[in-house]
Amino acid sequence: MNEYDEPLFFQVMQYASNADRDIVDMVSGNPDWEPPDALRDGLHEYADADAADFQYGPSEGLTDLREQIGARRNIDSDNIIITHGAGEANYLAMAQAVECSDVNTPEFLLTDPVYPYYPGKASLLDATATHVPVHDDGHLNIDAIQDAASTDTVAIVLNTPNNPTGAVYNRAALNDVAAIAADIDALVIVDEVYDHFDFTGDFESALTLSSYTDRIIVTSAFSKSMAITGFRVGYAVFPPALVDAAQTRHMLVTVSGSRPAQRAVSDALEKTPPSYYASVRNTIRERIDTFTNALETIGAAYTEPEGAFYVMARFDDLPGTLENVEYLIDEAGVAGMPGEAFGNAYDDWIRFSLCTDRISIAGDRLMTFFQNS
Amino acid sequence: MNEYDEPLFFQVMQYASNADRDIVDMVSGNPDWEPPDALRDGLHEYADADAADFQYGPSEGLTDLREQIGARRNIDSDNIIITHGAGEANYLAMAQAVECSDVNTPEFLLTDPVYPYYPGKASLLDATATHVPVHDDGHLNIDAIQDAASTDTVAIVLNTPNNPTGAVYNRAALNDVAAIAADIDALVIVDEVYDHFDFTGDFESALTLSSYTDRIIVTSAFSKSMAITGFRVGYAVFPPALVDAAQTRHMLVTVSGSRPAQRAVSDALEKTPPSYYASVRNTIRERIDTFTNALETIGAAYTEPEGAFYVMARFDDLPGTLENVEYLIDEAGVAGMPGEAFGNAYDDWIRFSLCTDRISIAGDRLMTFFQNS
Repeated sequence: MNEYDEPLFFQVMQYASNADRDIVDMVSGNPDWEPPDALRDGLHEYADADAADFQYGPSEGLTDLREQIGARRNIDSDNIIITHGAGEANYLAMAQAVECSDVNTPEFLLTDPVYPYYPGKASLLDATATHVPVHDDGHLNIDAIQDAASTDTVAIVLNTPNNPTGAVYNRAALNDVAAIAADIDALVIVDEVYDHFDFTGDFESALTLSSYTDRIIVTSAFSKSMAITGFRVGYAVFPPALVDAAQTRHMLVTVSGSRPAQRAVSDALEKTPPSYYASVRNTIRERIDTFTNALETIGAAYTEPEGAFYVMARFDDLPGTLENVEYLIDEAGVAGMPGEAFGNAYDDWIRFSLCTDRISIAGDRLMTFFQNS
Repeated sequence: MNEYDEPLFFQVMQYASNADRDIVDMVSGNPDWEPPDALRDGLHEYADADAADFQYGPSEGLTDLREQIGARRNIDSDNIIITHGAGEANYLAMAQAVECSDVNTPEFLLTDPVYPYYPGKASLLDATATHVPVHDDGHLNIDAIQDAASTDTVAIVLNTPNNPTGAVYNRAALNDVAAIAADIDALVIVDEVYDHFDFTGDFESALTLSSYTDRIIVTSAFSKSMAITGFRVGYAVFPPALVDAAQTRHMLVTVSGSRPAQRAVSDALEKTPPSYYASVRNTIRERIDTFTNALETIGAAYTEPEGAFYVMARFDDLPGTLENVEYLIDEAGVAGMPGEAFGNAYDDWIRFSLCTDRISIAGDRLMTFFQNS
């Protein structure tokens, strides 16, 4: 394994928690809202289950849960592996890309900016990572991906709705990427963990690109949609030719997902009304408005997220370095994440997570700080 | 990754569940007894916790849980990583052995017989596995380990109390293995998942070998001791010099353990009286007696386990092949595991798990079958 730095956000969170003043935490993507009621009910019910239900379930995941996902996604549940969160799903997907290629120096094409765990996993798998800058609006630069694609490329890894840019890639863009991948015989891995947080109404899963089902792996999790990042229930959908090998690795690394968490998620999937998800989306929309209004007043550049729950902001004379983020913590009482944590393309931006109900306080503090500076 | 066969026990369980008659399942090591009451209580309590408690905990595991383990094990909790079961703990340990060595063709020394996941993990890590036969009584053959040790050896992997032999290795044997490992600069990985199932009273954790703390990794889990194989809560104790690298891999593969499961285990650790463990041990002891009495009557050779909860039996004219195990399912109505699943040394034996309350029925059926055959 190559060198891998601890993600910058651990440093920022540590710094914020040691600060002498009250800080509005806009660093982590841990939902601050309630999970579905049915999830809590499911845990209670499971707590009283037969002892037999406390033992190993199928390694590929509880059958009910896989079938529920299959039905919702309109796919064959045989191709679904329930994983220990999106983290394991992305690990399995990227490992599979390396394993099924015969390239000596495997390379992943990632976007810039990028969710920092992807290059970390590439490094774990002794592969290199090439970062392809996206357009200024956060959308994919297809020409740049085309230029970067090589015979060493084993997979192109995308995240839509995107953390940190908030971009939701459209069907045409996904199709273009899949066509590039087909030309170089690479896989496309699409992390759709924010799929319930689409404000455009246009989000389409990469699973619907029926011409490319043999090379698309989609990963997701219930961490964000059910506000349970600590439960670690995710899944990966593999092409039929790859699912057995991925399942073998899953069995040898984690055996199977944790059963209480799978059981609770399955119950919540069955019983949670669409209004739950819509209500959370509305909350996020309001927070986006509140926060971007403040940024508008300040005169900062900012993203208007099409999806996910992060706003990127660029302040004149305050590039998004770790040092400046710490300065903002001390002087404004608002903690964001340095843009440099996500690569070079947005290294003068700061990412603000909307997982707090104190958005208007944060906005007020930033306005006061920038008016006085 | 090299070829890895699906463990034989899946085939056997499938065969048994398709049989036309009632079968006593002595295949899997899934406890059939009750988990501690405090574990169920802990799940209920967690189900009503604040939403914040449903989010990511520390990647290395809940602090309470690590401190409880550290106190019980008399070790520094900084060296403990809570894993997704013993499966992930052993994966992290074996990956670390490969990662921290500069050997081109890394090799693991395993015992024969062996728990089949260890060679599977070696294969996943692109390493070879050399199987060193144990003595007829299941104890380590130190001379054979010494002879097999080479400069390619990155770790010697042990399991005590042992599945499938039931041997509990004594302190002198562990010390001898550690000395061999020190000579060739290898690690010793000791899987102690059955540590609560020691009938000799002599079991000592490898963590107490204070001369070798820099090269011993101990793994364990609550799967067996709390009858919760489906919860996936285990841990690994690393030498201080290795814990950071192992933690990085843990973060990149699974992020962190599932929080409801960790919380329930932590509550159960705090509140479960020693009588719970003693009572389960007594049950297993009685089952051993019942089953070995039947084997004695039949005139079979058998192991008398010092630990864990398996009995190996060798029947004249019925070697422990998959075919013969299936024959015994059909003709006697008792399902065991073929000895060949564990390597060559016990390939004419059959392993019977004691995780059923129908041991005396199984014994009766086997007596009837062998009296008539």
